[in-house]
Amino acid sequence: MLVVMKRDATKAQIDAVVERIKEFGITPVPLPGAERTAIGTFGTTSRAAADAVESLPGVAEVVPVSRPFKLASREVIAADTVIHLGAIALGGGHPLAVIAGPFAVESRDVVLETARAVRDAGGSALRGGAFKPRSSPYSFRGMGEEGLAVLAEARAATGLPIVTEVLTPGDVEAVARVADCLQIGARNMQNYSLLDAVGEQTRPVLLKRGMSATVEELLLSAEYVLARGNRNVILCERGIRTFERYTRNTFDVNAIPLLKRLTHLPVIADPSHGTGKWYLVAPVALAAVAAGADGLLIEVHPSPDHALSDGFQSLTFDNFRALMAAVPQVARAVGRTEPVAAR
Amino acid sequence: MLVVMKRDATKAQIDAVVERIKEFGITPVPLPGAERTAIGTFGTTSRAAADAVESLPGVAEVVPVSRPFKLASREVIAADTVIHLGAIALGGGHPLAVIAGPFAVESRDVVLETARAVRDAGGSALRGGAFKPRSSPYSFRGMGEEGLAVLAEARAATGLPIVTEVLTPGDVEAVARVADCLQIGARNMQNYSLLDAVGEQTRPVLLKRGMSATVEELLLSAEYVLARGNRNVILCERGIRTFERYTRNTFDVNAIPLLKRLTHLPVIADPSHGTGKWYLVAPVALAAVAAGADGLLIEVHPSPDHALSDGFQSLTFDNFRALMAAVPQVARAVGRTEPVAAR
Amino acid sequence: MLVVMKRDATKAQIDAVVERIKEFGITPVPLPGAERTAIGTFGTTSRAAADAVESLPGVAEVVPVSRPFKLASREVIAADTVIHLGAIALGGGHPLAVIAGPFAVESRDVVLETARAVRDAGGSALRGGAFKPRSSPYSFRGMGEEGLAVLAEARAATGLPIVTEVLTPGDVEAVARVADCLQIGARNMQNYSLLDAVGEQTRPVLLKRGMSATVEELLLSAEYVLARGNRNVILCERGIRTFERYTRNTFDVNAIPLLKRLTHLPVIADPSHGTGKWYLVAPVALAAVAAGADGLLIEVHPSPDHALSDGFQSLTFDNFRALMAAVPQVARAVGRTEPVAAR
Amino acid sequence: MLVVMKRDATKAQIDAVVERIKEFGITPVPLPGAERTAIGTFGTTSRAAADAVESLPGVAEVVPVSRPFKLASREVIAADTVIHLGAIALGGGHPLAVIAGPFAVESRDVVLETARAVRDAGGSALRGGAFKPRSSPYSFRGMGEEGLAVLAEARAATGLPIVTEVLTPGDVEAVARVADCLQIGARNMQNYSLLDAVGEQTRPVLLKRGMSATVEELLLSAEYVLARGNRNVILCERGIRTFERYTRNTFDVNAIPLLKRLTHLPVIADPSHGTGKWYLVAPVALAAVAAGADGLLIEVHPSPDHALSDGFQSLTFDNFRALMAAVPQVARAVGRTEPVAAR
Repeated sequence: MLVVMKRDATKAQIDAVVERIKEFGITPVPLPGAERTAIGTFGTTSRAAADAVESLPGVAEVVPVSRPFKLASREVIAADTVIHLGAIALGGGHPLAVIAGPFAVESRDVVLETARAVRDAGGSALRGGAFKPRSSPYSFRGMGEEGLAVLAEARAATGLPIVTEVLTPGDVEAVARVADCLQIGARNMQNYSLLDAVGEQTRPVLLKRGMSATVEELLLSAEYVLARGNRNVILCERGIRTFERYTRNTFDVNAIPLLKRLTHLPVIADPSHGTGKWYLVAPVALAAVAAGADGLLIEVHPSPDHALSDGFQSLTFDNFRALMAAVPQVARAVGRTEPVAAR
Repeated sequence: MLVVMKRDATKAQIDAVVERIKEFGITPVPLPGAERTAIGTFGTTSRAAADAVESLPGVAEVVPVSRPFKLASREVIAADTVIHLGAIALGGGHPLAVIAGPFAVESRDVVLETARAVRDAGGSALRGGAFKPRSSPYSFRGMGEEGLAVLAEARAATGLPIVTEVLTPGDVEAVARVADCLQIGARNMQNYSLLDAVGEQTRPVLLKRGMSATVEELLLSAEYVLARGNRNVILCERGIRTFERYTRNTFDVNAIPLLKRLTHLPVIADPSHGTGKWYLVAPVALAAVAAGADGLLIEVHPSPDHALSDGFQSLTFDNFRALMAAVPQVARAVGRTEPVAAR
Repeated sequence: MLVVMKRDATKAQIDAVVERIKEFGITPVPLPGAERTAIGTFGTTSRAAADAVESLPGVAEVVPVSRPFKLASREVIAADTVIHLGAIALGGGHPLAVIAGPFAVESRDVVLETARAVRDAGGSALRGGAFKPRSSPYSFRGMGEEGLAVLAEARAATGLPIVTEVLTPGDVEAVARVADCLQIGARNMQNYSLLDAVGEQTRPVLLKRGMSATVEELLLSAEYVLARGNRNVILCERGIRTFERYTRNTFDVNAIPLLKRLTHLPVIADPSHGTGKWYLVAPVALAAVAAGADGLLIEVHPSPDHALSDGFQSLTFDNFRALMAAVPQVARAVGRTEPVAAR
Repeated sequence: MLVVMKRDATKAQIDAVVERIKEFGITPVPLPGAERTAIGTFGTTSRAAADAVESLPGVAEVVPVSRPFKLASREVIAADTVIHLGAIALGGGHPLAVIAGPFAVESRDVVLETARAVRDAGGSALRGGAFKPRSSPYSFRGMGEEGLAVLAEARAATGLPIVTEVLTPGDVEAVARVADCLQIGARNMQNYSLLDAVGEQTRPVLLKRGMSATVEELLLSAEYVLARGNRNVILCERGIRTFERYTRNTFDVNAIPLLKRLTHLPVIADPSHGTGKWYLVAPVALAAVAAGADGLLIEVHPSPDHALSDGFQSLTFDNFRALMAAVPQVARAVGRTEPVAAR
């Protein structure tokens, strides 16, 4: 760490910081400058040491030097992590995976019809929320356990592996019994009890970036899951909150190549939430592919204007097929093999 | 609701929207304008209707007219809600309540010493986290159940009611057995399973605003708790994330009078998290009082530079006493009775 | 417009709003709802009417229905605007234009060497700031008029048209005498005197989006230029400020297809400022192409680590050539003809 | 500065950074750590050195240690700057100054009537925009030079000094001939040509914080004015853009005590723009006083619902008088003498 002293810090204050650092078993190195003194350190520093020093008299700022995530870091683990959803391999240069389906499991018919359309268009997996977080307590919140049974039926009918959300530690076991991959939604990115719970089971975890989370915070949340023993985490960029009002969220395309550089975990893109408008989904999906995404998460619905929720960002089957025709072109243009179908 | 059609919407598209609105049992009223047509409605509209119409061809935008929160709204319930923490009454013109204590329960001695200092300075309740959410899995996460016992001992020793955080539905019962008030932290503001769980028990709930949440989203989260039957919700402004780097968060002082206008629930201010710097806590606390807050939540620690977490934003006992001397002056200046001590 | 009354608005308040609206020559239509009354209008409404009504007693909110930009709107002018920079045509399905060069004109040698490298790699135009805005008064602020002469020399040597920034109305004439296109920087997006000044001359204007501006605000600033008579405005997405700290800005890829839908003006992407990191420039540039950008603005420098400013986001000649090899692949993949070289 | 190397930086890369730092005449100090090496420096470092090092291979990050503003810094100039507007002294513990008036000079009658009301209620100075920046080219943009004459007449009639906005370098001389203080609006906070121009004349400058500017950026913009020789700069917190939709801006109350700590310049608060809602102006004004503001900037209008612009955030005369009665109570409560009237 680097401790920046105030311009008017006294000799006694500087000495006190030096002594306090030594109490943590770290070697301090004072660096007098033209305006002020800074104090660097040799060796391992802890968060506790940084916190302790920050409140000492005369200290202006403490700058950490180490990155706070370890298991998620490409500096620690250089090789790409590859994750298996059923027969599909995701990450590590494997073909792009397209996970598609309705926002919520709202009826058996909608799910089965959509699953067939996704498979026929070349999709890799089926998504759909049996349990849905909604900002209003009066909105439709999903079919619950019954929805899980519908998803299992759709998998049996199409061969598509299933990705579905889990909302609370108490549901993890039931959802993991059915799903091929557990999704942690954006609002739960820092729900640490839930991260602990999915970290203690073996299904892959699809972790969505929080609405205003930084890339580092996303990686720290992944670290929670990894630290509990589950090494199969897929990161998902799904747009961040900005001042823009035409779109629901702003898809952060920078995050795709940045994450690929910082971490060995696979990175997928959700342009449906990332834009909130169906007519922006295809261009932003293609942008994500061009930027190096390992996969896509796309909302598809047989009749978006009759969907019980989020219809405005869902693609019709026709629009999904058109997107699936365009994706391989862009994937090849950036040197990637084309998307892989579930069968 | 108001449905705004696109400038080039066809007659057929407008008619289709009118018909779709009627399917929901609502009366549409077309309003042709110079540039485009809008369609207003008579009577009750549902979220489902708005969602359905939004994805129809020719629709530019759907504007809701009703507020999505009901039980939290002052338009629905005009009279201030008064909440009791032990012998302390909060809200509704009652004297300002100051809830203070360490960020985390890190040792029995620190908690007992702080509790006595808080009581002696005239504080109303003791805060302290037995369970703490931390963005890194490697940070100190609290003493857990043992911490609850320490808090109970501090209450027995000082008479101060206890406010402590609950992180997961599975812990609600254990925490409610000890605490006088359950805190929902900023990261869990949209953890709906947890909101449901605290809504189904009877202890008051202190709900902190999420780091990037709007005031409406805070009220919608309160609505979750209220809708489950627990009407005792205290709202807490604790700063929002902004681009500022000198401070950890930006305390949103506008939210204090705005919330007092929108809702009947009591509103308190947390200038410790709201600034992240101990030297800004007192002026911002006084600002919150001047703006009409019903109470304050303040971090106090016997030795901030030896705290296991968040020492940089904690007040020493001396600084806390100085703040407690200034608060009544400002409270009286804005026509409020001064803070109430626990005994 | 739609005027939403408060839930408890009285009959007298509603009547007063109705009367006030009539004073502006607009026809009000009251729309009683389950919770509250709204008042729609027939016919043209002005901003002044909306402002006046908003402060009347009993009014909760006024919702505008018309878009505030006209000349920039695709609803008003459907056909793509095509803009000529020297022999290069930009927009309207013309081949992608790549405008590249150093951040600032810092020496004759750097500019000439870079211009040749840009031309040889297939670039369409040369960029470079003779006048540079810098947040610190102590940073290098460009070579000024001498820099303009260097740019003119580079054009003579390579045939590349010149894009350069103008900072103040007093410089517009001098810059327009040399440049083929005047750039308005992000910090000046709402410098209305400057927008008026570039609107009153005939050179094309490259208007960069402000650091925290919405898409609508960008279009309103373009409207300033268009309203003064200059119809040749190129819009440039260059990243917005977000909470992310790994990157300087967050490139808003959504804005590319959104702007193409809202306006007939050409839209280009600046991934250099949009990321602030040279290693993110290529993937984000390709993403912008996949999303439908009409062109790219790229910082190139012969020796980025010796640049006087912004070296960290500049591409070396080698990296620029590699990008120029990849761009046509992605352009073709999304059905666009490949970039056009200046000669 | 501190140069943080990547975890996998080679010995050769570290050596290259050390050599490059020496080229700038600075002494590098390598600090090997458990995870990576950092390199501190002794002595004065320049921005150019930091920029140069940042793009070298193996460098992860460069952390500046010096603050980039000098003349604005309290570390450089410890004593409070006191600024004179006519007979009023602002800053340095002088009584609170309340500058009030209409948003824009829209008619002679409105200005004269408001000036008298401001003076009678105990206001210190009159504000009003003769030239107004508006985001739409079709909005009312002020009366221009004729407006300046009206302001001069109001000063003659009431004795109140005049604060008015200047938009472009070409107008500085004309505005400075009439005004007692030149206002730089939020949208022009980084209009460096304008900052240079007001820095080269002698009237005090009221500098408003940009809509998304950090506190450091505000101080850097003040530094522009100070560096040109004008030491009379008043800083104004006027709210920042956030995600909140109920309010126009979010008043950053933290900025008041933070600025008082970082700089010797006086700091005033504009709760009218800082909230955008007249009913929030008084509580937020009192909050700013409690937090230590040196003055207030308040919009007042004889008939807000007939104002040509921004009526929704203006106080009526009655509401302004009520606020002026409350301000001294809070000022005294925080140990400040009460507001000073112009005469």
